[in-house]
Amino acid sequence: MSKTENGEKILSILNPGAAEQVKALLNDIAPDFAKIFVEFPFGTIYARENLDLRSREIATLAALVTKGTAPGEIKTHIVCALNAGLTREEIVEIIMQMAVYAGFPEAISGLALAKEVFTELDAQ
Amino acid sequence: MSKTENGEKILSILNPGAAEQVKALLNDIAPDFAKIFVEFPFGTIYARENLDLRSREIATLAALVTKGTAPGEIKTHIVCALNAGLTREEIVEIIMQMAVYAGFPEAISGLALAKEVFTELDAQ
Amino acid sequence: MSKTENGEKILSILNPGAAEQVKALLNDIAPDFAKIFVEFPFGTIYARENLDLRSREIATLAALVTKGTAPGEIKTHIVCALNAGLTREEIVEIIMQMAVYAGFPEAISGLALAKEVFTELDAQ
Amino acid sequence: MSKTENGEKILSILNPGAAEQVKALLNDIAPDFAKIFVEFPFGTIYARENLDLRSREIATLAALVTKGTAPGEIKTHIVCALNAGLTREEIVEIIMQMAVYAGFPEAISGLALAKEVFTELDAQ
Amino acid sequence: MSKTENGEKILSILNPGAAEQVKALLNDIAPDFAKIFVEFPFGTIYARENLDLRSREIATLAALVTKGTAPGEIKTHIVCALNAGLTREEIVEIIMQMAVYAGFPEAISGLALAKEVFTELDAQ
Amino acid sequence: MSKTENGEKILSILNPGAAEQVKALLNDIAPDFAKIFVEFPFGTIYARENLDLRSREIATLAALVTKGTAPGEIKTHIVCALNAGLTREEIVEIIMQMAVYAGFPEAISGLALAKEVFTELDAQ
Repeated sequence: MSKTENGEKILSILNPGAAEQVKALLNDIAPDFAKIFVEFPFGTIYARENLDLRSREIATLAALVTKGTAPGEIKTHIVCALNAGLTREEIVEIIMQMAVYAGFPEAISGLALAKEVFTELDAQ
Repeated sequence: MSKTENGEKILSILNPGAAEQVKALLNDIAPDFAKIFVEFPFGTIYARENLDLRSREIATLAALVTKGTAPGEIKTHIVCALNAGLTREEIVEIIMQMAVYAGFPEAISGLALAKEVFTELDAQ
Repeated sequence: MSKTENGEKILSILNPGAAEQVKALLNDIAPDFAKIFVEFPFGTIYARENLDLRSREIATLAALVTKGTAPGEIKTHIVCALNAGLTREEIVEIIMQMAVYAGFPEAISGLALAKEVFTELDAQ
Repeated sequence: MSKTENGEKILSILNPGAAEQVKALLNDIAPDFAKIFVEFPFGTIYARENLDLRSREIATLAALVTKGTAPGEIKTHIVCALNAGLTREEIVEIIMQMAVYAGFPEAISGLALAKEVFTELDAQ
Repeated sequence: MSKTENGEKILSILNPGAAEQVKALLNDIAPDFAKIFVEFPFGTIYARENLDLRSREIATLAALVTKGTAPGEIKTHIVCALNAGLTREEIVEIIMQMAVYAGFPEAISGLALAKEVFTELDAQ
Repeated sequence: MSKTENGEKILSILNPGAAEQVKALLNDIAPDFAKIFVEFPFGTIYARENLDLRSREIATLAALVTKGTAPGEIKTHIVCALNAGLTREEIVEIIMQMAVYAGFPEAISGLALAKEVFTELDAQ
């Protein structure tokens, strides 16, 4: 399989809706980057063996909560984390733990975003 | 068990040597913080149910590589990650994945630190 | 007094409304973290002797403006800073000074948030 | 020319509207900082010889996308970059490149902001 | 007094040795920036009324520990903080408090640096 | 040309020695990442048209000084910037400008690193 096919496959498991949104956004302004977005993070990195998708989403969620700069990405990867097999309780624990490494404001913001995602999912 | 006992127990599993070093460092200048270091991150957060230590170390390693400000802590938590059951290959994958979220310089620095830790362990 | 009582006491001085909001938010999704939020930052750290609340709020405001990731927290701690005895002029000076250490964008954003807080207070 | 005159001159080239907005914002709460905003970044730094405004805006855009904390400033400096002679294609390339150093979330957010700016300009 | 004179006066109070070191470093490579270093942070910002030097050093120390990128600057401003009237105990409290906002690794690194500074001072 | 060939070509222009060092470091611990390091940042991003290497190095240097977490990478890209056609004076200006966006400590650290690089080059 090509990197693009690998990336599409991973994205279809993790979060098909969000992946389409990002690609639609990027296609308008940077179509090559829409391709890179599929090929590199997902087709090259996530598609690698040696680490399961559940573990990869723990790492990504921890990284995004630590940065605290991309609330939309945090919400997207909370959905990815659920699709990779994490429970809501585990996601809440990961975000809480970031209070130790990123600080309490990032943990509280992350929990507020998780609450939004869970509420949206329950309303579907 | 008290929070202190819980924290000591977790630290004894994850990295007894590094825990003693941090406590020795803090005891000189901030003895209360040495106590807080055991009680809060480990006795209050890591000791919680709902997330296993392996998953907690994935999250911590991702957070520390993303910040990129504390190389000593990265080395310590690479050892913790091994003690929590992650393989060297998995640790390398987690750090590589941070290239996507934290940037290539942080991933390369993290891999250099992992190489140091693995070399030190092999020399023991 | 227990850590919870100490934390409640500090929060009642600094910003009772915001404290209740954070606890209400967290109670839904992470009730244990609502407890930790009172016990650790406020009941364990702010409640310590050796540093007055006015000095603690200077440090917190500087930290939050430097991070620049949590505008809501900046607004909350501007109110806390007023309640801890800082004047509006002092708060403005602290934020301006962050231009030197965090950069001009963070200082300008911080000043815009202070303006919002002061306007809201004047409208009460 | 004084630093204020130098700063006004640079701002009149780069982005007169945004400069007036920042000054109006700051005048209410920190009039001295409105003066400093003209004098220091623009009148002291950008006004220096040895580096052209086009290169300065590349550096500023890269810095702001890397920080990821000030979306309004990113939009402002995308306009400044156009006024300093960068093409839309070059601006998109600079933001894309930040995926390597700041991470994919910052690059994607930056591209979304560029799309907003270009759409606003096309609607004028 | 000119901004340069104001800056020199503040630096002579806070940390004459470190100020000379920074100026010597910058004179070799960027003599104008050596001048700016005196004029802007110290001659323009710290020299302002409305906030005392003790409060300014609390803010600066909090900002630098939060960033965690400049250990030398942290050590320098621990000395400045002492010269501005803060006690060692207060400095330790400020750094400990940053565990809440910047994370435990930054607080522990900051305490290690404070220990170095206090040891160096005691050895004089 | 393949992405690997494109990446090798760019790296041979910008900084052959540093590129070999990074690849040697990564080959030991993460040989696939050594390949990715050539293919993605350089073979996929820097190799793109629409932005010249001189502009790319301005953006990278600004990003790295803003982050402040990877002094070795800053030194490497100061050499890359020289090889991409920037003068020493321009490099100093870019780093100085980061005082406005990243803060004075990052600018001062960056200038100290530039001084090291220039001294090392003059000693060759």
